[in-house]
Amino acid sequence: MKLTILGCHSATPRINTHPTSQVLYIRNHIFLIDCGEGTQVLLRKHKIKFSRIKHIFISHLHGDHYFGLVGLISTFRLLSRQADLHIYGPKGIKEVITLQMKLADSWTNYGLYFHELNSKQSELIFEDEKVEVRTIPLDHRIYTNGFLFKEKPAPRKLNANKVREADVDVAYYSKLKQGADVYNNDGQLVKNQDVTFPGPEPKSYAFCSDTGYDPAIIPIINKVDALYHESTFLQQHQRLAELTKHSTAIDAAKIAQAANAGKLILGHFSSRYEDVEDFRREAQTEFSDVELAESGKVFEI
Amino acid sequence: MKLTILGCHSATPRINTHPTSQVLYIRNHIFLIDCGEGTQVLLRKHKIKFSRIKHIFISHLHGDHYFGLVGLISTFRLLSRQADLHIYGPKGIKEVITLQMKLADSWTNYGLYFHELNSKQSELIFEDEKVEVRTIPLDHRIYTNGFLFKEKPAPRKLNANKVREADVDVAYYSKLKQGADVYNNDGQLVKNQDVTFPGPEPKSYAFCSDTGYDPAIIPIINKVDALYHESTFLQQHQRLAELTKHSTAIDAAKIAQAANAGKLILGHFSSRYEDVEDFRREAQTEFSDVELAESGKVFEI
Repeated sequence: MKLTILGCHSATPRINTHPTSQVLYIRNHIFLIDCGEGTQVLLRKHKIKFSRIKHIFISHLHGDHYFGLVGLISTFRLLSRQADLHIYGPKGIKEVITLQMKLADSWTNYGLYFHELNSKQSELIFEDEKVEVRTIPLDHRIYTNGFLFKEKPAPRKLNANKVREADVDVAYYSKLKQGADVYNNDGQLVKNQDVTFPGPEPKSYAFCSDTGYDPAIIPIINKVDALYHESTFLQQHQRLAELTKHSTAIDAAKIAQAANAGKLILGHFSSRYEDVEDFRREAQTEFSDVELAESGKVFEI
Repeated sequence: MKLTILGCHSATPRINTHPTSQVLYIRNHIFLIDCGEGTQVLLRKHKIKFSRIKHIFISHLHGDHYFGLVGLISTFRLLSRQADLHIYGPKGIKEVITLQMKLADSWTNYGLYFHELNSKQSELIFEDEKVEVRTIPLDHRIYTNGFLFKEKPAPRKLNANKVREADVDVAYYSKLKQGADVYNNDGQLVKNQDVTFPGPEPKSYAFCSDTGYDPAIIPIINKVDALYHESTFLQQHQRLAELTKHSTAIDAAKIAQAANAGKLILGHFSSRYEDVEDFRREAQTEFSDVELAESGKVFEI
């Protein structure tokens, strides 16, 4: 799994700070998460193939998280995209995008599917044989979801020597990869763990932005390998964080600590701060493995 | 009058080519004309004071001409703008902007006024003591207007020596500046032209994008000092221009020639062309004073 940060600042886009958007490479997917104004230019800058993006997840309908979406949809049309595009986001997202298409009299020539969300409980919103995505209900000024991306367990790998010694018919190999015990050619039971290795450990990534400090998310993201958690403010503006339902770096670190996260990535920095390293310093008082999001930065998970 | 080009390419924003937006300095106004995605970042880049923009003119509701508007309105709010903002654009613009504010539960704390257009005739849409703005109905795939910006005649200037010699009372000076004849202290008529100089020549600027070749606009823009006319295509794609209701460089030049324009500025270039100088070369077969729009370029009119 690999995460590329496109934009990670709050509120207004500026020359060198971009609103939220991220690209997650997970198994054979490229997922786009949030899509602030200018995202399509950042996708080009970081040479991410437009045609491979088939699923876009929008956390909430504040402009810095989705004002770039309609332009991206429109650009896909101009590039004669064929592949379906699925948009997951709060109720209302379909109306606002389709209204803009209607006013422009410019409808997509590819399949555009909206999956509107309104549940306040975590729910499974995407699943295939390799990956699942669940919402993480967040506590913000408007209806907002984070997203938990989880790989499914990979097939076990055959131990070629042992499987041959055990005299298992080739027909049973796929059952072995799925973790089942099988009978060999002599009718004897062969224990799966004796003839296979575990597959690669499935990884998980949680995206949590925007939100106030919200311990209710801890069980949902428990033991996540990497947690992106917004930290709009430093401790000196803690009251402002509470008022606006945003988090401080320390809030984010407390969540990471309580959820046993492997790593914490901070972002959604307010542009009032000159030195984003202060976010790391404050968070590290609560949690050790802290990284800072930065446009163009790639995290291997 | 001074025109700053922010973006002047068609269709999709790229790293170094930006969709349409321009800033016109006219008398004491700063007018924003069209507002493609990323316009607010270009305004910052070119150090244009956000608070001085009080009127925004949107030609039509294709995304490359207005997808940056909602973000700009939202940024004005975040910057605690106080001044009213007036938006002039096609019917529908109010609905699409207010829907996005509603979904974000983020209303402006300044006055936001929409002036929706639906006339197919040229109409006066803004006027004060120094400037007037009229629509230029264009021929595009959806309802589209260009805009004609005209300075009103400036007051005449007093010829200080002559006015003293003629013994005109100071009370009549403002009448003289307005061009009227007046009586002097001896009751004799003083001809205005004997004691005043003409004020600076009023200037005009016409913005015409997007449009197919449309001679109907010629009388509206007759003798305009500077004409920005879209030229999406070169001659080799003339058929495509007709199909999509865009213009070639030669179409634009023919309009400039027939309208006795002072200068032609070409823009809205398709990104398919490597060398935009070809647009100038083709246009100059029909009209001599041709300039090419370019992001950041400033034209004194």
